[in-house]
Amino acid sequence: MTETVISSAKREVRIGFEQPFVIIGERINPTGRKILAEEMKNGDYSRVESDALAQVAAGATVLDVNAGIPLADEPRILAEAIQLVQSITDVPLSIDSSIVAALEAGLAVYQGKPLLNSVTGEGERLEVVLPLVKKYDCAVVAISNDEAGISENPDDRFVVAKKIIERAADYGIHYSNIVVDPLVMPVGAVNSAGRQVTHLVKRLRDELKVNTTCGASNFSFGIPNRKGMDAHFLSMAIGAGMTSAITNPLHEEVMQGIMAANVVMGHDMNCSRWLKRYRQPPAEGEGTGGEGRGGRRRRRRGGE
Amino acid sequence: MTETVISSAKREVRIGFEQPFVIIGERINPTGRKILAEEMKNGDYSRVESDALAQVAAGATVLDVNAGIPLADEPRILAEAIQLVQSITDVPLSIDSSIVAALEAGLAVYQGKPLLNSVTGEGERLEVVLPLVKKYDCAVVAISNDEAGISENPDDRFVVAKKIIERAADYGIHYSNIVVDPLVMPVGAVNSAGRQVTHLVKRLRDELKVNTTCGASNFSFGIPNRKGMDAHFLSMAIGAGMTSAITNPLHEEVMQGIMAANVVMGHDMNCSRWLKRYRQPPAEGEGTGGEGRGGRRRRRRGGE
Repeated sequence: MTETVISSAKREVRIGFEQPFVIIGERINPTGRKILAEEMKNGDYSRVESDALAQVAAGATVLDVNAGIPLADEPRILAEAIQLVQSITDVPLSIDSSIVAALEAGLAVYQGKPLLNSVTGEGERLEVVLPLVKKYDCAVVAISNDEAGISENPDDRFVVAKKIIERAADYGIHYSNIVVDPLVMPVGAVNSAGRQVTHLVKRLRDELKVNTTCGASNFSFGIPNRKGMDAHFLSMAIGAGMTSAITNPLHEEVMQGIMAANVVMGHDMNCSRWLKRYRQPPAEGEGTGGEGRGGRRRRRRGGE
Repeated sequence: MTETVISSAKREVRIGFEQPFVIIGERINPTGRKILAEEMKNGDYSRVESDALAQVAAGATVLDVNAGIPLADEPRILAEAIQLVQSITDVPLSIDSSIVAALEAGLAVYQGKPLLNSVTGEGERLEVVLPLVKKYDCAVVAISNDEAGISENPDDRFVVAKKIIERAADYGIHYSNIVVDPLVMPVGAVNSAGRQVTHLVKRLRDELKVNTTCGASNFSFGIPNRKGMDAHFLSMAIGAGMTSAITNPLHEEVMQGIMAANVVMGHDMNCSRWLKRYRQPPAEGEGTGGEGRGGRRRRRRGGE
């Protein structure tokens, strides 16, 4: 079974079919966060620090770091943010930028083997990012769009992913270092969006043997109760074989979905992480949490 | 694709691979409910009535009716409860008893085509229940245990299910009238319980072409935050191909999981039922529910 191994100086994380789901914390990203953008631009990384610590405390095992601030010196800021985050946590990082110079600046200062985020199937991007992946011997997120944009046909997106993996092989990059994002469509616009994900994750796993990731919250774009939907979309995607996601571990519903999915997949031995998170101290006047919450035994067999 | 059709006098419900998940409301069951048991024994069906109406309002499309009260005249009580429920709702019913005379009393008064709950792989039970299924041309829940009890090996349980279906065929009962319960183990005791369900649902669907049901809450027996686990276990089971469950539609988390799963499976066209349930009126001072809850667009692409 394919495993994608990434690391910091001190810790290794394995993304894989037989591993607990890998949560890549998405918060360190100034897009849409004006205050954070302004601070990062001015060299103030206090919020980056607190976001890093909070996400790790909430259960992220990898952190995405993005410094996409318009008109700012993104390569420098991204490198500084990565150094700061690596100085206070030991989780591996995802180095996230649309600017190749920023990716390279991040790679240059990174300690360990990071996840590079991302390459697409666009020819130009392939030919500049894949050499970096090879040079730094890192892993990379491969997003299944190309010059033609994002196809609504999942099998077209599969073909793009296959092309990226083949081109990477030409550079001597093993498919275990490629984590494919099959691209999640908003279900409010594309009714088959969920089935597309199941279908693609299965094909990517069975035919290309690769790990997968996604930005789960795209699925619920435009519909109400997004966190509730995100949580179930994610647990179902995990059931279908998805092995990581870039998401917000501070959302309790989403974390609950991921943790439940680990239990259902048999990836939380003796339910120990579930118990640690949800077992309540017994001295609360209502017994243990285990029996107190909806804890009635199934009754339909009771008469037998 | 196999469809199990059940009905009341006025309404038909289809359990099937391409249908929204069928929620069989479990509440009308005196096991473990002393007050209800006492009332039913004394001919007071007011709580049966309110449980029926509440479950239908909450989204149950079938109601299970059980009258298993020790030392009571179960056939009479079950028949009366069924007549009462059929007089106030038009959802089809599941006639639930471990006593064959009660099943027959229920069948005798039922209007439409019910789901009989249940037959097992035990020889004696097979030979008395299957003739009833044939005589009344109803559907039946087949529970995959036999004289040897419940095997911890899921493939043994598959063999029991196959035996029931073959024996039913001998009686002229089509497999589309059999809904198999593969038996859900408590994950706190059997770490592979979730994978067993996925594995069995797939085998039952691919090899025997049958619909499936379960008592979902068995999965979470003995662990904390049961409703949270039940909700994700169910959505993941639906993702794996489960087509119905006997559960409590009054549990909001469980209902949310089922409704989200219908969206992910493409069985809630235009997300219309999800929207109906979760869309909030816009005049609440924070925009529509759709945008107000966690409604930030995925940011990682923002810089591109």
